[in-house]
Amino acid sequence: MAEIDHAACLVAAELAARAAGEEIKAAWDAERDVEYKGTVDLVTATDKKCEDLIFDMLQSKFPTHAFVGEESVAAADGKLPEIGDEPTWFVDPLDGTTNFVHAFPFSCVSIGLAVKKKPVIGVVFNPISNECFTAVVGNGARLNGKPISVSKVSDLGKALIGTEIGVSRDAATVDAIMGRVRACVENARSLRCSGSCAMNMVGVAMGRLDGFYEIGFGGPWDCVGAAVIVTEAGGVVCDPSGKPFELTARRVLCGNPDIAPALTKVLTAIPDGPLEPQAP
Amino acid sequence: MAEIDHAACLVAAELAARAAGEEIKAAWDAERDVEYKGTVDLVTATDKKCEDLIFDMLQSKFPTHAFVGEESVAAADGKLPEIGDEPTWFVDPLDGTTNFVHAFPFSCVSIGLAVKKKPVIGVVFNPISNECFTAVVGNGARLNGKPISVSKVSDLGKALIGTEIGVSRDAATVDAIMGRVRACVENARSLRCSGSCAMNMVGVAMGRLDGFYEIGFGGPWDCVGAAVIVTEAGGVVCDPSGKPFELTARRVLCGNPDIAPALTKVLTAIPDGPLEPQAP
Repeated sequence: MAEIDHAACLVAAELAARAAGEEIKAAWDAERDVEYKGTVDLVTATDKKCEDLIFDMLQSKFPTHAFVGEESVAAADGKLPEIGDEPTWFVDPLDGTTNFVHAFPFSCVSIGLAVKKKPVIGVVFNPISNECFTAVVGNGARLNGKPISVSKVSDLGKALIGTEIGVSRDAATVDAIMGRVRACVENARSLRCSGSCAMNMVGVAMGRLDGFYEIGFGGPWDCVGAAVIVTEAGGVVCDPSGKPFELTARRVLCGNPDIAPALTKVLTAIPDGPLEPQAP
Repeated sequence: MAEIDHAACLVAAELAARAAGEEIKAAWDAERDVEYKGTVDLVTATDKKCEDLIFDMLQSKFPTHAFVGEESVAAADGKLPEIGDEPTWFVDPLDGTTNFVHAFPFSCVSIGLAVKKKPVIGVVFNPISNECFTAVVGNGARLNGKPISVSKVSDLGKALIGTEIGVSRDAATVDAIMGRVRACVENARSLRCSGSCAMNMVGVAMGRLDGFYEIGFGGPWDCVGAAVIVTEAGGVVCDPSGKPFELTARRVLCGNPDIAPALTKVLTAIPDGPLEPQAP
């Protein structure tokens, strides 16, 4: 396998994210005085258009690379392709879809590149707040070009923790989610739920949150890019159990180097195994 | 009692909110690479400075009006003064203090005027996102000068609901909070917790959220101004039990005209009375 040109990949990913971001911003600013279903259709169309745009831009530059996108996987009945060792791009053209429908300002384009199943490049772009988070493995993380780092809050009792309550109605899943939320309420300063896995993770990278966890989110496209950004900002990315992060597990925990292990400890101490994986 | 000049009050309140907002933005942009305690001190100083600034600006214009501010009440050991029928300003110089400390971009200045205990004017200004929400009773609500209205989502199952999980550690309070969150998870589309009562309420006014409730927040300064903005945007503001909204009860529910009653119904159906007031 040829060497990967990280700089070329970063530049291409940022250009693609910004191009998709323009489409998203245009749809965001479009007349919103429509019925709910009309807005949902607008989002679906924007989502598909942006994934095609990003794939076209990246595939023309990197024709030998593999591509995994939220929309393509959804079109294949949700079946994730086998992830190999070749350079593989993970793309969520619009993370935070419910937020987009409601004009809640946490939505983003999420692009990540993994090589040998390890995340190496990440771009997360929120076109509404015009925040572009980027990182290349070994070269630090940046927000709109300026270096960022995780927070220095070392006491979980003073930490602001992000998570998501999700949209599941299954009683066992809701029990597990509520058990984890309660454990956080009892141990952390406070909780924020803002509706985008990638935005939550980059929030950790720039210190807006001290820690974040989510179990059962959409897919690897939500976290591969952001995982590089958090790690390069000095943070820790792992499984909520404390085990190593796995690309396709739909489970992630991250935080600054003090808060990540403290949060893992709290979550793994919950009785009745609420850390078991949940159905997609 | 002389007639109130609503236009003069609105202009003065918006000027005061913007002046305080400049102080907040300056503190927000200041070097954040400090220890947690240093940031907390910065917030306390900014909070106090902004309340003094707002009080000075409004008192010089309206010397006969009464003033209730979060900082002044805190300085009086948390004791709220008797609220009379005279025009009374309620001021939170910085709602979303934890967010401010963490640079989580939902913080605002909240100013409301009540006459005969009824909210009549509201200004909520987020200097970070540069969103200024204003309303005068009978004249509609606006965001940065443009008219706004609540969402048209009519089905609670499709509604995005805001609430706060708070910072309480008391087991009974946590039980009650978790009971309500669970009821929402089971009935609504999804939940957002973004850490500012006033920002959540104006989020309802402009359709970012379809409904919001909170029980046991700081005080009337968090909701008097926003209550006018929601009502003038076509929304409903009441007690979470469905009874009339009370200025000083530290309990509020609001939403569009379909979602507010649907949410009240879900909350009042929770067994074991989780709608009882909680200790401050």
